[in-house]
Amino acid sequence: MKIEGVEADGAEVRLYNRETENREHIAAQIAERRGAVLVPSFDDPDIIAGQGTCGLEFADQVKARGEPLDHLICCTGGGGLISGICLALSSVSPDTKIWTAEPEGHEDWEKSLKAGEVQTNAPGIRSVCDAILTPKPGELTWPIGKKYLSGGCVVSDQHAYEAMRLAFRYLKVVLEPGGAVALASALFRLPEEAKGQTVGVVLTGGNVDASMFQDVLARAV
Amino acid sequence: MKIEGVEADGAEVRLYNRETENREHIAAQIAERRGAVLVPSFDDPDIIAGQGTCGLEFADQVKARGEPLDHLICCTGGGGLISGICLALSSVSPDTKIWTAEPEGHEDWEKSLKAGEVQTNAPGIRSVCDAILTPKPGELTWPIGKKYLSGGCVVSDQHAYEAMRLAFRYLKVVLEPGGAVALASALFRLPEEAKGQTVGVVLTGGNVDASMFQDVLARAV
Repeated sequence: MKIEGVEADGAEVRLYNRETENREHIAAQIAERRGAVLVPSFDDPDIIAGQGTCGLEFADQVKARGEPLDHLICCTGGGGLISGICLALSSVSPDTKIWTAEPEGHEDWEKSLKAGEVQTNAPGIRSVCDAILTPKPGELTWPIGKKYLSGGCVVSDQHAYEAMRLAFRYLKVVLEPGGAVALASALFRLPEEAKGQTVGVVLTGGNVDASMFQDVLARAV
Repeated sequence: MKIEGVEADGAEVRLYNRETENREHIAAQIAERRGAVLVPSFDDPDIIAGQGTCGLEFADQVKARGEPLDHLICCTGGGGLISGICLALSSVSPDTKIWTAEPEGHEDWEKSLKAGEVQTNAPGIRSVCDAILTPKPGELTWPIGKKYLSGGCVVSDQHAYEAMRLAFRYLKVVLEPGGAVALASALFRLPEEAKGQTVGVVLTGGNVDASMFQDVLARAV
């Protein structure tokens, strides 16, 4: 579905091997050859600032309901979205504790936050959460995350599937696995200190093939 | 799913036969026996007014985008929602043309609008659009609809399924068949005069069983 969607927009898709190639290098080469502008998926000040508006919207909507926003959990790959949210909330809701959400085997942020320095995932571990698989926190996103994040949540692919089923049933929203890990974290791996408090969850994508969605719905809850 | 959802809220579910029983009478009897307040699903001034706020939101959001709202199509059963929208838009967006959307065999509104008086569906015709199957326009909703509606769109169950698939794929929204008939109308049965204009569509429900949703996704587009 993702390939079809991108091609329908008139773009050319170049597949790569996560284990042996580096997508940033490939993109930089293509951009240089064609004189194109490179738009990074996370490690860029404008991308971070733009995605941070999600944090502003969250703060506005929670305030309109008269609720506190004690915690916020966000699906995390390279960290563009969550670092933007960190910057936004540091200004409009500084007491909110912000947590990364990652799939098992790809918890580079969780490990980095624990260690206090960038940690890299072991190569070769597969996950269905393809949208948020990055080897390590970004160069721009890590310093922001290190400053503002409270810690990380780690869930299994099965947790992500269960969150997809619950979003289908109760929220009427289509999520892809990588877009469901924050909801899965809130449901199954909520940090101890967040229990009983108001927790915001960012749902970050629904580009899931119909065949996979059928399989997920068919599994026993 | 609907039965489970209602029971989970602590209610008791009384099933009835659409062909041989009248749900309004059954509900009135239960309310009288228990001293309960009856909340009609559409033929009630407060229900109509409350649902009409959907029209206000629509007008606000379209205005915020600087777009006209030339047409609006809404799934229609008893007509509570659409008659409320008619009243709301007659005040804030009087040039918007409003159209009912119904499944084939249950197009009592479309027929009534054509005839200028209430028409009743033939009994015994089945549709998967269970949420919006009513025998005829309501006593309160009909006079409002007659005054303000431009006409009706009629779609097949297959059109509703296709709209569900497209909502899954492009909108990332879960729809039940009865909640998808307005989208199906916009896509496959758009009134001639609405072509090339800005058309609003109201999506009205996503209470679909996982097994049915799997079946719908599995069918060829």
